[in-house]
Amino acid sequence: MRGAQIIFQPSGKRGVIEEGKTILEASRNFGVGIESICGGKQSCGKCRVKVLGGEFSPFTEEEAKFIGESEKAMGFRLACSARVLGDSIIFVPEESLLQRQIVRKEIIERKIELRPAIQSCPLELTPPSFGDLLGDLERVEQALSKKYALTQLRIDYPALQTLPRALREGDWRATAIIWMGREIFEIRSGMREELFGLALDIGTTTLAGYLCDLRSGKTIATQSMMNPQVVYGEDVMSRISFAMTHPKGLHLLHRSILDGLNHLIKLISEKANLSSEEILELTVVGNTAMHHLFLGIDPQYLGVSPFPPVLHQSMDIKARELGLRVHPSANIHILPIEAGFVGADNVGVILSLEPHCQDEMVLIMDIGTNGELVMGNREGLFSASCATGPALEGAHIEFGMRAAPGAIERVKISPGTFEVSYEVIGGLRPMGICGSGIIDVVAELYRVGVIDRSGCFQKEMECPRLRWRDGRAEFIIAWREETSIGKEITMTQQDIRNVQLAKGALYAGAKLLMRRLGVERLDRVILAGAFGSWIDPRNAMTLGMFPDCDLKKVNAVGNAAGEGARIALLNREKRREAEEIAKKVNYMELTIESDFQKEFIEAMPIPHMRDPFPHLNL
Amino acid sequence: MRGAQIIFQPSGKRGVIEEGKTILEASRNFGVGIESICGGKQSCGKCRVKVLGGEFSPFTEEEAKFIGESEKAMGFRLACSARVLGDSIIFVPEESLLQRQIVRKEIIERKIELRPAIQSCPLELTPPSFGDLLGDLERVEQALSKKYALTQLRIDYPALQTLPRALREGDWRATAIIWMGREIFEIRSGMREELFGLALDIGTTTLAGYLCDLRSGKTIATQSMMNPQVVYGEDVMSRISFAMTHPKGLHLLHRSILDGLNHLIKLISEKANLSSEEILELTVVGNTAMHHLFLGIDPQYLGVSPFPPVLHQSMDIKARELGLRVHPSANIHILPIEAGFVGADNVGVILSLEPHCQDEMVLIMDIGTNGELVMGNREGLFSASCATGPALEGAHIEFGMRAAPGAIERVKISPGTFEVSYEVIGGLRPMGICGSGIIDVVAELYRVGVIDRSGCFQKEMECPRLRWRDGRAEFIIAWREETSIGKEITMTQQDIRNVQLAKGALYAGAKLLMRRLGVERLDRVILAGAFGSWIDPRNAMTLGMFPDCDLKKVNAVGNAAGEGARIALLNREKRREAEEIAKKVNYMELTIESDFQKEFIEAMPIPHMRDPFPHLNL
Ligand code: FES
Ligand code: FES
Repeated sequence: MRGAQIIFQPSGKRGVIEEGKTILEASRNFGVGIESICGGKQSCGKCRVKVLGGEFSPFTEEEAKFIGESEKAMGFRLACSARVLGDSIIFVPEESLLQRQIVRKEIIERKIELRPAIQSCPLELTPPSFGDLLGDLERVEQALSKKYALTQLRIDYPALQTLPRALREGDWRATAIIWMGREIFEIRSGMREELFGLALDIGTTTLAGYLCDLRSGKTIATQSMMNPQVVYGEDVMSRISFAMTHPKGLHLLHRSILDGLNHLIKLISEKANLSSEEILELTVVGNTAMHHLFLGIDPQYLGVSPFPPVLHQSMDIKARELGLRVHPSANIHILPIEAGFVGADNVGVILSLEPHCQDEMVLIMDIGTNGELVMGNREGLFSASCATGPALEGAHIEFGMRAAPGAIERVKISPGTFEVSYEVIGGLRPMGICGSGIIDVVAELYRVGVIDRSGCFQKEMECPRLRWRDGRAEFIIAWREETSIGKEITMTQQDIRNVQLAKGALYAGAKLLMRRLGVERLDRVILAGAFGSWIDPRNAMTLGMFPDCDLKKVNAVGNAAGEGARIALLNREKRREAEEIAKKVNYMELTIESDFQKEFIEAMPIPHMRDPFPHLNL
Repeated sequence: MRGAQIIFQPSGKRGVIEEGKTILEASRNFGVGIESICGGKQSCGKCRVKVLGGEFSPFTEEEAKFIGESEKAMGFRLACSARVLGDSIIFVPEESLLQRQIVRKEIIERKIELRPAIQSCPLELTPPSFGDLLGDLERVEQALSKKYALTQLRIDYPALQTLPRALREGDWRATAIIWMGREIFEIRSGMREELFGLALDIGTTTLAGYLCDLRSGKTIATQSMMNPQVVYGEDVMSRISFAMTHPKGLHLLHRSILDGLNHLIKLISEKANLSSEEILELTVVGNTAMHHLFLGIDPQYLGVSPFPPVLHQSMDIKARELGLRVHPSANIHILPIEAGFVGADNVGVILSLEPHCQDEMVLIMDIGTNGELVMGNREGLFSASCATGPALEGAHIEFGMRAAPGAIERVKISPGTFEVSYEVIGGLRPMGICGSGIIDVVAELYRVGVIDRSGCFQKEMECPRLRWRDGRAEFIIAWREETSIGKEITMTQQDIRNVQLAKGALYAGAKLLMRRLGVERLDRVILAGAFGSWIDPRNAMTLGMFPDCDLKKVNAVGNAAGEGARIALLNREKRREAEEIAKKVNYMELTIESDFQKEFIEAMPIPHMRDPFPHLNL
């Protein structure tokens, strides 16, 4: 191999890589986060970097799709396309940097009955003598049986190693930590009853953790961060394909998620002023692909019809088997999976929102990088997964970006004057627009008549913000002087199409579920997900993301999947309930429904080709 | 630190060590095995090396006890005393090298009813379809339940990771490997039902392994090697003290035994032409200290009254938790312990010899580096541990050595002429005398009248082989011309004393057990242990190692502890029996018996001060 020295600006990170690697590959090696929503397939255009010097492979046709002539002249390239052929310096512009995202995974906490998997049992022991030669372990077991009626216990290996010292250091007063009434996790010297646990939500984009005191039920710290796997592809399918096509792909993805979780564990423990070794129990939710990658299980069959997961049932596994740095005996409880595309995250959503305990006919839309739907009531539940594409998260949108400082998150357009008012995350000058802003813009454009039901710009409309570029119409949201990027932020015809594709898929999915359930109308719609907590319900319904419903009964609940993990952490009975939910929910594979295509096409117009929306008063 | 370069001859091994370390410490760092029976306490004199050059700490008084003036002049030092103060070259003489030992851990195999913990279940599965979206795991579980009535299974984590590929590679024909009817260890593609297991006996001095085909019950390979812990001290107490006094002592002893076992596993697998990954189950016996060190449990409390072990009960633990390189899911079953000084090895002995199923009153003596006694019949069993000291294994005997090539192992002395005939292991010129030879010599010296009942040389006896050196008497076993060490091999008055101390302790222990059981005579005596298979029963009884018994009913059975491990490997019901044995055997702590000292003193004469030996016809 010939090596090339490469330097990234503005971070100054540098190193030597094999010549012929792409700039994106180099950036991963040196910990430079470059946005790469398509996973390096030259199809998202988010990985634009500016070359300041060096030798590279020639500019390609794919790059030309995302980089205009003038930008090309300035040295712009797609990091996933340009290959390094000699020593080089690369500038990563603000908008291509990965770290900027702010992560919103708030949960609305409910009161949960406390019944954790871990209990602490203080013990007073008599020391051994020639008349009483019980082993240390048998001595502890005898006391646990007498005082707590705990029998048939086994001891986890690390606890055995520290047992003799703990008993003697505490002068034969000790606290036994018992898991599920059957395994000794630790013998602590003296009386120390604190118990902590961590609920984890492994999202395709975001990792979220909720550190709980298992004795009070309180969440004592929350922490979220980017899923570091995003450098290997933004959505589930691109990660599955990375795992399949790269020789060590599965290993890299598995390591990457565990490294990320270890980092999160470190941060959240510091926040709570605890040692991470005090975390005794973890619960995990995540979609099926994240679940498999977390466990290091090859996800390739998830990508191939009929998409069976490797397992549905919940798992208990020692954290040390995965290398998570918590208590050496800590257990991870991974919630069960419903189907190949409806994972433990959805089980968490149901556990938290309890549609199976309601009389009302509920639709739950958990909108993340994928869309997962649940519909039903106490009579039965159906679930489905929609390939919405990432438009609703800001990808495949010309000025789309994640919910990060500088992102326009709220937009209003005045009828008649078409004046735009917007809110920007962090109060900065805008550099792009995130999901909730995108939904607002499209809904407002429709409301004020700039686009019609089919989503097309009204070319004859007198509107100062509507302009034509290379024969394509676009609406100017922010003028060049207002933005921080030296050009206008616009919404193009293609952007609107992509939003329509996403919302159409969600609507069609909901419609097929209604038909399967034989219902005509929904009593309630719940929008869950990191996205869901920031979406405007009226605008979402105006777009036609879901069928008509009383707007008073449409609401956003934040990260319900994470809340489900927290529930399972605090109450072990709920784990059994989750297992039953996963078995009972009927999964509907939309792609093989003959009506799907028709419903999808009918759901493309705004709000819909034929369905009425009496609650919108349009 | 200042470093010194050190070279060992004849091996040529070399390296740099911190100045001030002893030669023995250096030898451990570089994998040079130097005999060190006392563990480096300058009290065994076995670690003699010859310094060829370099700088060292001054010659000490302790060294003078083992190294005469002329040897001192030649450069001899005790490796555990001399500290390296500069670059040096050391010669390790043949008799101080550790590797020479041949290890004799034969077992007498019995027919064992086959009921291993592992079973293999061939399965024919239907592949998933949209009508049948079971997960891979649920599919396997369903088939196991239908065909084998196995339910409530859990899957071990490594098996889960390889599951999806195995099913598809075998085109949905697979073999499930199930442990104890409750855990899936592996799903193999296709029909592959082979099952292998390994029984391990961790002796203080010797590791022995028996690799078995779990479907036929056959032992397909055996392997033994030195316990590499011997470099840290020869007997149990010196290892416990090493663990206590060195900062990383426990860690070093734990690593050392595991490294040794991994080496043994490699050798035995190669012998059997198997991959070590095919070993699915292990059983382990060993005395309590070896048991604790194997598990990395601090053994220090075993050395302090009232000597409680950390646990008595059997353990099941994953081999991977300890880092043993076998099948990734393999389980280790460690047999239970009776008491601080009567360990899982003794349980193995009982499991194998079944005194608890006999009518005869049996005494079992398992003579290793320690002596463990069991006495009783179906009415009940008592056990005890005797600190025999290592004399019966050749230590603390001037020309004592282990059973290795060059060791005199059989000795006969003609009455009247005192002609000596002997047999040497390997047919070589002798360089020392091992345990069975030592017992022969002392018994023969007594028989021909060279020593009296009290063990004293008959000074007035006309015997050409009896000579006086520095006022101490000694008997010449081999003349200088016959040996390979350039001097005579003798048995000194002190050596005979040491043998008397050892046999006196065994006899006194047996006597106290008889008293506790209220029996007057023994129906049978079984001599077990690596040592036991080479001992001459008549000579042992002549010495008075155990009370009188019909010599037709005294026999040696080889490594009964290892045989017990093999039984537990092949039949899982026997594990429950072992657990009951460990609970039921009554342990008798000899050191607190008021009569022990008196019995011990009375047992010092040959064969005994007062007890008759009608079966000896003396
Ligand atoms: S275009 Fe380069 S990562 Fe998507
Ligand atoms: S005298 Fe050196 S090891 Fe015993």
